[in-house]
Amino acid sequence: MVSSILIIGGSDAGISAALRAKELDPATAVTMLVADAYPNYSICGLPFYLSGEVEDWHQLAHRTLEEIQAAGIRVALNTRAVEISPQSQAVVTHSHEGGTRTQTYDRLVIATGAQPVQPSILGIDQPGVFLLHSMDDSFKVSAFLQLHEPRRALIVGAGYIGLEMADALTHRGVAVTVVEQQRTVLPTVDETMGESLRRHLEEHGVDVRTGVKIYQIEQTGKALHVTGNPEFDREVDLVLVVVGVEPVTDLAQTAGIELGMRGAIPVDRMMATTVPGVYAAGDCVETYHRLLDRATYLPLGTTAHKQGRIAGENVLGGSRQFAGTLGTQVVKIFDWAIARTGLRDQEAKAAGYVPKTVDFVTWDHKAYYPGAQELRFRITGDSQTGQLLGAQIIGPWQASVAKRVDLFAMALYHQMMVRDLLEVDLSYTPPLGSPWDAVQMAADYWLRTDTH
Amino acid sequence: MVSSILIIGGSDAGISAALRAKELDPATAVTMLVADAYPNYSICGLPFYLSGEVEDWHQLAHRTLEEIQAAGIRVALNTRAVEISPQSQAVVTHSHEGGTRTQTYDRLVIATGAQPVQPSILGIDQPGVFLLHSMDDSFKVSAFLQLHEPRRALIVGAGYIGLEMADALTHRGVAVTVVEQQRTVLPTVDETMGESLRRHLEEHGVDVRTGVKIYQIEQTGKALHVTGNPEFDREVDLVLVVVGVEPVTDLAQTAGIELGMRGAIPVDRMMATTVPGVYAAGDCVETYHRLLDRATYLPLGTTAHKQGRIAGENVLGGSRQFAGTLGTQVVKIFDWAIARTGLRDQEAKAAGYVPKTVDFVTWDHKAYYPGAQELRFRITGDSQTGQLLGAQIIGPWQASVAKRVDLFAMALYHQMMVRDLLEVDLSYTPPLGSPWDAVQMAADYWLRTDTH
Repeated sequence: MVSSILIIGGSDAGISAALRAKELDPATAVTMLVADAYPNYSICGLPFYLSGEVEDWHQLAHRTLEEIQAAGIRVALNTRAVEISPQSQAVVTHSHEGGTRTQTYDRLVIATGAQPVQPSILGIDQPGVFLLHSMDDSFKVSAFLQLHEPRRALIVGAGYIGLEMADALTHRGVAVTVVEQQRTVLPTVDETMGESLRRHLEEHGVDVRTGVKIYQIEQTGKALHVTGNPEFDREVDLVLVVVGVEPVTDLAQTAGIELGMRGAIPVDRMMATTVPGVYAAGDCVETYHRLLDRATYLPLGTTAHKQGRIAGENVLGGSRQFAGTLGTQVVKIFDWAIARTGLRDQEAKAAGYVPKTVDFVTWDHKAYYPGAQELRFRITGDSQTGQLLGAQIIGPWQASVAKRVDLFAMALYHQMMVRDLLEVDLSYTPPLGSPWDAVQMAADYWLRTDTH
Repeated sequence: MVSSILIIGGSDAGISAALRAKELDPATAVTMLVADAYPNYSICGLPFYLSGEVEDWHQLAHRTLEEIQAAGIRVALNTRAVEISPQSQAVVTHSHEGGTRTQTYDRLVIATGAQPVQPSILGIDQPGVFLLHSMDDSFKVSAFLQLHEPRRALIVGAGYIGLEMADALTHRGVAVTVVEQQRTVLPTVDETMGESLRRHLEEHGVDVRTGVKIYQIEQTGKALHVTGNPEFDREVDLVLVVVGVEPVTDLAQTAGIELGMRGAIPVDRMMATTVPGVYAAGDCVETYHRLLDRATYLPLGTTAHKQGRIAGENVLGGSRQFAGTLGTQVVKIFDWAIARTGLRDQEAKAAGYVPKTVDFVTWDHKAYYPGAQELRFRITGDSQTGQLLGAQIIGPWQASVAKRVDLFAMALYHQMMVRDLLEVDLSYTPPLGSPWDAVQMAADYWLRTDTH
């Protein structure tokens, strides 16, 4: 009988596990250890706090501490787990005040999340240079913005957070340079999409430098002098370093868990680790990919929620399986949304498919009705079986880019053939779509196009 | 060997059949008989032409005559088919100029569409009273609007076209009264949704009268005096009667086809009629419903396109089956979109399910990001199996109402369980969604709610 559940981590996966366990069995004691003072905050919301669009950081809480406690969850704030002993089913914790405790559990959920990767840049520890991942990080950046009113910022890394921060700082009137080591911005989408996005960034005044590796940041007077290869040299007032995250797994190792891909915790589809009674979920674990049918490392809030919910069910004896990620992602940058789901051409090839990928442009709704917007699709399918493998869309965010990529995600979930997309009875009215929706026109284009 | 295909009708189903046949076999002769001069016009676009939002009616053409002809399709305009003789595989036609011809075919597609229902209202044939379905109808209304500049309009029927015309005429500065015989507006959605929409119409100055049956229209001076039951009495300058459509099937009957439900042409899922060599598609046929697994009458442009495409494939010897309608529909009225897919509670009950239907309200995206909009969901599922049966959504059209209902349509196509909606990896970024998208929150609410 499971009477006490201990959850380490208070972000998406942890809170989802805690809430689900309490929902299914209110009698079970659920305790959540939170390393800082901010349980269940929207880390994805940090750029919008720093842009000024979200005025009060308290709004970023998905739920308040009071709401979490009202659900019957015991929350220990500022409490860091430092050791797991599976033999004695106990966890040693340190609190901020210095106290050390040992807490026992019947079932444990590790949801320690991820931390920013710190690239090897000389001078990265200087004042004015920030990583950005936690609430504390964002308070530091916020304080710097208010105190120093920087006019020029440099962002290292053109991934989701880097580009959202380019938007956010531009919104505040700061002149922004984005530097990316890869050949295009947002390397999680294909280069044709990345090049469209680069132009959109430039139209909004962002200076974009790709194929450049930053190696040094030096203080020069009140400014920061940033240098990189090849031939990059810039004086700015603020540097953000956002080049990705890595799983936080020191604690998991104390439990005897051997780490897997990119240092993440291996779990089965029930979110159980190799250690009996110990589950793990969220940005610290390897994630099952539904199309690849194997583990990958893909830390996302949506996945953390789903995995946490499943862990919360299975710690109580359930046997729910994680359906798997499809790699669905969307980001809004200035006026555009850029979204993807499934596999890209080279990912599909690496997975043994014989992919065909096409680019297609059409209107979001009937062009005769005012306000029609151009959507750019990139569709990947298997040329031998006709199975849909992936889709990327870029266009004005009001044109339902995100929900249109979700239609492809639904199709991928069901392993649909591209052809069968044309069978689905989707909605139509001239101001909002076409008799064949844009996603169906893109599918039809894929069918009709021979890329050889 | 099929060497000549004759298609009767130049709207959605007819043109889709013609294009598909030509795409698959450019060598086959495809002739399309069009009763008027307007092949492939967007009938769904008429309200936006009459509102003034579409300035030139030519823009309503999905394709121009030249584009259709460039695809290799022979188009006979102003040519009405009056008799089909399956024995001799021939069709007798009358042209506007009075000529009578006989044209033979190897395969025939009947795509004669629908016509407006003319309710029994005294004085419906008077000047200033209009039905609205064809390009010709809309030219008459347009001419009346320009010539007489009516200040007050009355619309009989609060279905899709009636409400779009309420919006369109309000847009032109005309004071609009909408009269509906049913208890709420838009009877194709449930009453709770209809009541929300009624308030939205009223907020935009539309006078809405439900539960009223119009029985008489009289000329009084320059105005029209409209009376109805109970106690309805109004003087206006223009009356539109838009109470639905019925299939046009006189011609089909000359081929010996016995009509089915609501006078529509029975077809199998290959769009073949009971007469060898004769296919039919679009608003004139009975439509296979994927959830009910039987025929229904549900004339929609989206369905007409799909059925036409299938007929165009099968006249060449194909064996493609129509996947079935899900009853997916959306309409934009002022600032809102109202969408539905699948079965409503009473429809599900009539079909033998034990439905549970819940109402749920949430934000379209994280409330901390500016501009979050409220979406109202109504979800129907089978309480015994957990299968999703239907969904209705109402909310601001920018909040991806249409594409969110399409996510439910995708789920219905795959006969998903409500529970499994939570498994799908949908996209998330705070300005455009939530870690669990609103459609998933609605599904979760259905799961957690006991309506008994």
